[in-house]
Amino acid sequence: MGSAPVQPNDGGRDHGRPNRFITFEGGEGAGKSTQIRRLADALRAVGQPVVVTREPGGSTGAEEIRKLLVEGLPGRWTPETEVLLHFAARADHLDKLIRPALAEGSWVLCDRFADSTIAYQGYGHGLDLAWLDSLRRQIVGTTEPGLTIIFDLPIEIGLARAAARLPVGTSPEDRYERMDKAFHQRLRDGFMAIAKAGPQRCQILRADRSIDDVADSVREIVSRHFGMTLPVPTSVASGQG
Amino acid sequence: MGSAPVQPNDGGRDHGRPNRFITFEGGEGAGKSTQIRRLADALRAVGQPVVVTREPGGSTGAEEIRKLLVEGLPGRWTPETEVLLHFAARADHLDKLIRPALAEGSWVLCDRFADSTIAYQGYGHGLDLAWLDSLRRQIVGTTEPGLTIIFDLPIEIGLARAAARLPVGTSPEDRYERMDKAFHQRLRDGFMAIAKAGPQRCQILRADRSIDDVADSVREIVSRHFGMTLPVPTSVASGQG
Repeated sequence: MGSAPVQPNDGGRDHGRPNRFITFEGGEGAGKSTQIRRLADALRAVGQPVVVTREPGGSTGAEEIRKLLVEGLPGRWTPETEVLLHFAARADHLDKLIRPALAEGSWVLCDRFADSTIAYQGYGHGLDLAWLDSLRRQIVGTTEPGLTIIFDLPIEIGLARAAARLPVGTSPEDRYERMDKAFHQRLRDGFMAIAKAGPQRCQILRADRSIDDVADSVREIVSRHFGMTLPVPTSVASGQG
Repeated sequence: MGSAPVQPNDGGRDHGRPNRFITFEGGEGAGKSTQIRRLADALRAVGQPVVVTREPGGSTGAEEIRKLLVEGLPGRWTPETEVLLHFAARADHLDKLIRPALAEGSWVLCDRFADSTIAYQGYGHGLDLAWLDSLRRQIVGTTEPGLTIIFDLPIEIGLARAAARLPVGTSPEDRYERMDKAFHQRLRDGFMAIAKAGPQRCQILRADRSIDDVADSVREIVSRHFGMTLPVPTSVASGQG
């Protein structure tokens, strides 16, 4: 009696299996973007379609909203306004890129997602976590990441790595990286709390190791989580990566 | 025992009296902007400081967000993304302009505010009203309008007036005005429901009358609501308005 409830916005989710949507989270300088490229190579080497994207941004509209977020002086927006802009960009990104890609059977690898808003604006800037969580549920719906890999790094190492990347004339994109150490400690604590609250979805990864070691760990985590075999891609194994 | 609770974000509210924050709401072509100018003149004529503003927009950051909302093709954003952009702009507008102006003792007259988001995206596009209301409470806080005047017009008249204003090459700003008649009926019903739910704050005004008649009604409503006397300003009375 009665039909099955409609699952809105599920982006092609194969019910019972985790979405093929992997998010990479953590503080600055943890090597997320390098590792995303490595994992994309490994998935493509076994014939899997992959879309690599990032937040804030990732779709035409979301990239325009990103510009509002990353340009201009620090303190241009209140943390509350930043949250709304991040979720506006995220809603567009989900609608225009993430859900269509998942529905077509692609893997989606995303550099930062909703956990970053919760860590930065919630744990970092002290906004109400219940409010952020209600926005997350409203906007993300059932398109939750199937797996979130949290890159963990002692904050001194992360800040030093991030600082080493900065040119003398610091670009407006770097304003998150210039925030103080206490802020970065709250951020790290926040990511740890997020991982603890979502043990099925979140895996913490020690990022203060060599790029190859971290790439091995990422492939192992993904292989185990999605029940597949993901060898070192030939180009990387032969030193051409 | 125990201190009084802190009232955050109250923009200089004189507790017990309504905020000197008046919003003008309603469908297209109702003459809101003309009447805002008339009321501003009347308040200034009795020595009151007045800030006239509008949404979306009204502050530097909010005007940039406005551009994202009003430019580009219809359907560029989902209604959900539009809601988040509207509230992001509103948060900036409240923070940078409305609350400081109220705190300085100015009247703030605003062409559209949160009720428009609830009417357009909620009643018009069918988004969850409870979600919109929770966003309104979170972002507006205690800076609710002290008075909201809803300009009501039979939808045929409003649409005809709006259409008559359109140049041959329709500007991107006009995309709300091109929506269909059923949508405008839902919008009008929405504003009526909002007025019914907030009888202390909202006053419905029949806008299909002469500009002078409507201006008289606005002054009467404001005088009664705020317990003051607001005569016809001399410049208008002598035909120079």
